[in-house]
This record gives sequence, structure tokens and C-alpha cells, in this order.
Amino acid sequence: MRIAVDAMGGDFAPEEIVAGARLAADEVDAALTLAGSPEAIDGCLREHGQADARFDIEPAADVIGMGESPSAALRGRDDSSIARAVALVADGRAQAVVSAGNSGAFMALAAMRVGMIPGVRRPAIAVRLPSPSGPRVLLDAGANADCRPEHLRDFALMGSVYAEHSLEIQCPRVGVLSIGEEKGKGNELTRAAHDLLAASDLNFVGNVEGGDIYTDGCDVIVCDGFVGNVVLKASEGVAGVLVSQLRDAIGQNLALRLVAPLFRAAMKQVTDLFDHSEHGGALLLGINGVGIVGHGCSDAQAARNAILFAHRAVESKLVERISEVFAERAKAPA
Amino acid sequence: MRIAVDAMGGDFAPEEIVAGARLAADEVDAALTLAGSPEAIDGCLREHGQADARFDIEPAADVIGMGESPSAALRGRDDSSIARAVALVADGRAQAVVSAGNSGAFMALAAMRVGMIPGVRRPAIAVRLPSPSGPRVLLDAGANADCRPEHLRDFALMGSVYAEHSLEIQCPRVGVLSIGEEKGKGNELTRAAHDLLAASDLNFVGNVEGGDIYTDGCDVIVCDGFVGNVVLKASEGVAGVLVSQLRDAIGQNLALRLVAPLFRAAMKQVTDLFDHSEHGGALLLGINGVGIVGHGCSDAQAARNAILFAHRAVESKLVERISEVFAERAKAPA
Repeated sequence: MRIAVDAMGGDFAPEEIVAGARLAADEVDAALTLAGSPEAIDGCLREHGQADARFDIEPAADVIGMGESPSAALRGRDDSSIARAVALVADGRAQAVVSAGNSGAFMALAAMRVGMIPGVRRPAIAVRLPSPSGPRVLLDAGANADCRPEHLRDFALMGSVYAEHSLEIQCPRVGVLSIGEEKGKGNELTRAAHDLLAASDLNFVGNVEGGDIYTDGCDVIVCDGFVGNVVLKASEGVAGVLVSQLRDAIGQNLALRLVAPLFRAAMKQVTDLFDHSEHGGALLLGINGVGIVGHGCSDAQAARNAILFAHRAVESKLVERISEVFAERAKAPA
Repeated sequence: MRIAVDAMGGDFAPEEIVAGARLAADEVDAALTLAGSPEAIDGCLREHGQADARFDIEPAADVIGMGESPSAALRGRDDSSIARAVALVADGRAQAVVSAGNSGAFMALAAMRVGMIPGVRRPAIAVRLPSPSGPRVLLDAGANADCRPEHLRDFALMGSVYAEHSLEIQCPRVGVLSIGEEKGKGNELTRAAHDLLAASDLNFVGNVEGGDIYTDGCDVIVCDGFVGNVVLKASEGVAGVLVSQLRDAIGQNLALRLVAPLFRAAMKQVTDLFDHSEHGGALLLGINGVGIVGHGCSDAQAARNAILFAHRAVESKLVERISEVFAERAKAPA
């Protein structure tokens, strides 16, 4: 197995990404290729004058900036680190690609160069969410700002395979993120998606509301990428405000200040639930290979985790399983 | 001033709603009319055999259930408590109406019977949000599941007037809730709304992301009612999970258990920030009168607060101010 890493992608690239790759190299049974500027990567691999020789370098002279439009990435930017990393998978030289760079560019390149799993119309970003009762999956978390009902049905199918295959949730319950639980509630998109899913052979439980995302009731939550992205970022925002306000409130009380270290440990236990660096990134489902979309703010630990995540996804043959399920669906009578 | 209260609307109606009205009656300089079953209301007003005689009762034999479709409310349900309460404002007998009942029915009835402010295309639910740096406004929080760009522009204008007039925010900053901060990021709706708002004379600051809702940077956040509703409910959900997990973590530590009462006080200080019963409800902006949409789960305190909120809105002449601003806009050269 070989995993391609966009060494230049992310706010703290290449230093943190390369540092993360070095951590991951100790743990995974996979060859790692770092795509990017050989000089910059080499500088990061060097310690006490010695270069860490465990990595292949795929030279790329260009970097697509975080703020650039994804369409720019598709025109004449073949020598960018993202494009080189994606090409390794497209050419069959690697089985997975990890990038914490421009996510729009990464998704567009992955869908175009690696190609889609036959039968899947659009790729989707699947995010593993915490909940007191166990993990669940939300998709799409941002790949498609505008969706059609059949896209949501594809997301539901991919999300179900992911939940069953990778999270070991038997017969995962699928819900459409909507407003109001009753059928008929929601917007045009979710009402139509509800009908499609009710007619599918998925374990469809109907609409779920925003408040249900973090409670029990549903294992796979589907929505368009606009809604998914806004909801996830708002959730992180609320968690951040609550925690910092609570710290302030505790700092104002002498007795509580005395137990602050204990309290911090309890708080960490909780905030870890919402810590997105734990998995290092999200899965780009639907492309014909493993793609891990890292957070732009990835540090070495997040980069390491993203590579480990990619490794597990390849090893578990998730892409193959999704391909089988879509092939079966294509054969089934309509 | 007279405020009409739908005494039968909400999960805990009529008991809690009437109890809330009794609390509010001690505090506001307004006549209160309770719409609903005279027998049921009378039962709630009676204490030690004595009826609280401060209220007028508007008899209504019918109640629109929380799960009924809003369109049902518009057909032959004129004797419902919501319709009777709304009619009091439509007929000019009251200046505000408060309901914790079926919010879809309430909005549809209010828009149709009370009518819209000239120039406003759609009503919007405006929610006052907490943030460490002060209050802000998000709209639409659920009145319109599908919106057009010009609706978002109207929401921005109404939200700005509300922020300036009622929250005393000078020259409020307006943002479009989107994915990605750059112009051009977002979905079809927000990209078009961005262009409209950039061309308006509002203090438009561009796109804001989900994570920015609870931080400083923007005073008025506009979005369609689907996105607004999902985001608010998800935010409440995250806050609930975090707090309950933190309680569990603290319960597991003996030393922290000893200071639990102090901790609870600190926690309350923080969760009050997110407590929606504090204001008792949200403003239905755009109709030609004051409408307060209460939470279905309103208790007496929430009902009291909703009535106080209605009172402040009437007293501050918010509806008149919005009407003036839309009239000015209609006169301005396009």
C-alpha cells in the first residue's frame, strides 16, 4: 500500500504535514509519498543534519492557495502539490491521497482525475460525529453546495456502507436532516429526498432535526453540503464559546480555581469528543480511491491521524465495498 | 395597548401559558386577552375558588395541533385559538399576538390575516442570539424553508432595523451565512444574495461561516429559514450534550463532586446564555403588527417573557420603524 500526501497543503505546511507523516511512518505498514517542493520537504525531513529517508518525494513546483477558486486548480496547475498527489492515485501508484490544502480544489481534482465510482453522481464529504451513544456519520459536509434529491439518496447509500463497514453499525439508521420530523416538513430538496429514501431499501427513519444530530436516533444523517458545512462549523463554534465561557466563570471563583486542574481534565474528556483533529480529516466518499480531506489548520498530530485514517480505509477495502453496493443497485430492477 | 395570547398553544397549554400571563400581568402596562376555551382558561385562572379577573377571554372552541399542517389552519379553522388571537390584531383590537402553538399555522395566519408590511415579501423569524460580545440577530430561523435572494435582502433590512432600534447596535454589520468567507463561495442562493446585499446601502460585511455565528464580527446574520432552523437546533443540541457530558465527567471525580454546587452556579451562568426561554420567543418580522413565536415547550416563565417581549416591541414602535424604512426604500431610485 502507498499513501500520497500533499505536503504543501494546509496553513502549517509543509512543516506540520511532514512532521505528521514522520509520526505516521512509525505506525503504518504503508509506503508514503510526499508531494511538493523537494527543497522544502527535504528541509523538514532533516534533523541534526540527517535526512529521514523513509519517504519518496513527488516533485511539485506549484501550490494552490487556500483561497483560490477550485476551478483554477483544474486549469494548467498540473504541477501543484495537490494535483501531483492526486495523480499518484489516478495512475494507480498509490491507493490513498491525503490533503489539508484547498479542499474545493482537492475534491474537484479527485473527482476528475481519480474518477467516480460507477453509479455515484457526486462525491460527498463524510464526517464522523461524536455522540454519547457512539459515532455517527453526517454527509455531505461541504463537497456540494447545491444538491438534487438523487444526490442525497447516493449519500445515504454511501454513508450506510461506511457506517456498517467501517464503524460496525449493523443496519444503520438513515435520516434526512430537515426542519420538522413529519414527512412533508422541510424544503423542496428534503421533501423530495424523503420520498426517494422512503422508497429505497435503506433503513430509513425519516426526517431528523438539528437537535437530533448529537443524540441517539440516527446513524447516518444526509444533507446537502451547504447545510452540513454550516451546521458542523456552528457546532464547533458553540462548543468553543461554551468552554471558554465556562473557563472564565470558573476563574472568577476561588474555590473552583483550586480544583481547576481536575476540572480541566474533565473538560478535556468532553471537548475531545468534539475535537476534529482526532480523526485528522473527513472521508471523500464516491471517488474511486481513498481521499482524506484534512482540516486547513492541521498540525502534525492531525496530519498523522489523517494518514492513519487513510491507511485504515484502504485496508478495510471501503471503496471496493461501496463499488459493489452501487453495482448491485445498478443491476436491481428499478 | 392590548396583547392577545393564544392560551391553548404549546405543549403545556393552557396551564403554563395562563400562569405566564398572570405573571406578566403584574409587570406590563397592557391589557391581556386570552384566546381559547373559556372553561379551560377559567379553570387556570381560578385559585382558592377566586378567579383572576384581570384578563379578557376571547372564546375559541378549536385548537390547531402542534403536528397539523399550516395549510389546515387556513381552511375553516377560524374558531381556533390561534386564529382568534391573530384576528384581534388583524381587527385592530390588539397590537401584538403571542403563540407557543403550531408555529407554521401561526405564521401563515399572521401573514394572511394581519397582512404584510408594504414592500416586505415574506415574514421572517428573527432570533436574538447570545455571544460573549453582546446580542446579535439571526433571521430567518424557520418561517421560509425555501427562499429567493430578494427575500434574504428583505431579511437583512428588517434585521438591521431590529438590531439598531431594539438592540441599540449602531450601524449593524450584516452578513450572509455561507460556506467560505470569499465572495463567490456558497450556494446559488447565497451567491446571489451576496451580490444584492453588496449593492445595497446596508453595512454589509460579506459572507460569514457557521463558526462565526457566536463570535464577534457580525450583528445581523441572514439565511433561509431551513438553514437557520437547523443551525439553531443543532447549536442547542451541542450545548445540551456538552453540559450533560461535563456533569457526568465531574460526577466521576470525588474532589469535583465536592465543589459541584459551585460548579453548577458557574455552569448556569453559561447555559443561561443559550437559554431560549429567556426571551420567551422569537419575533415574527414583516407582518403589520407584533407577533411573538413562542417555543412549543414554553413553561410559565417562557410565556411571561414572551408577553414582556411583545410589550417592549409594541412600545418601541418596531413595526412602525420597519414600515418607514421599507417605504423609504420604495421611494428611492432603483
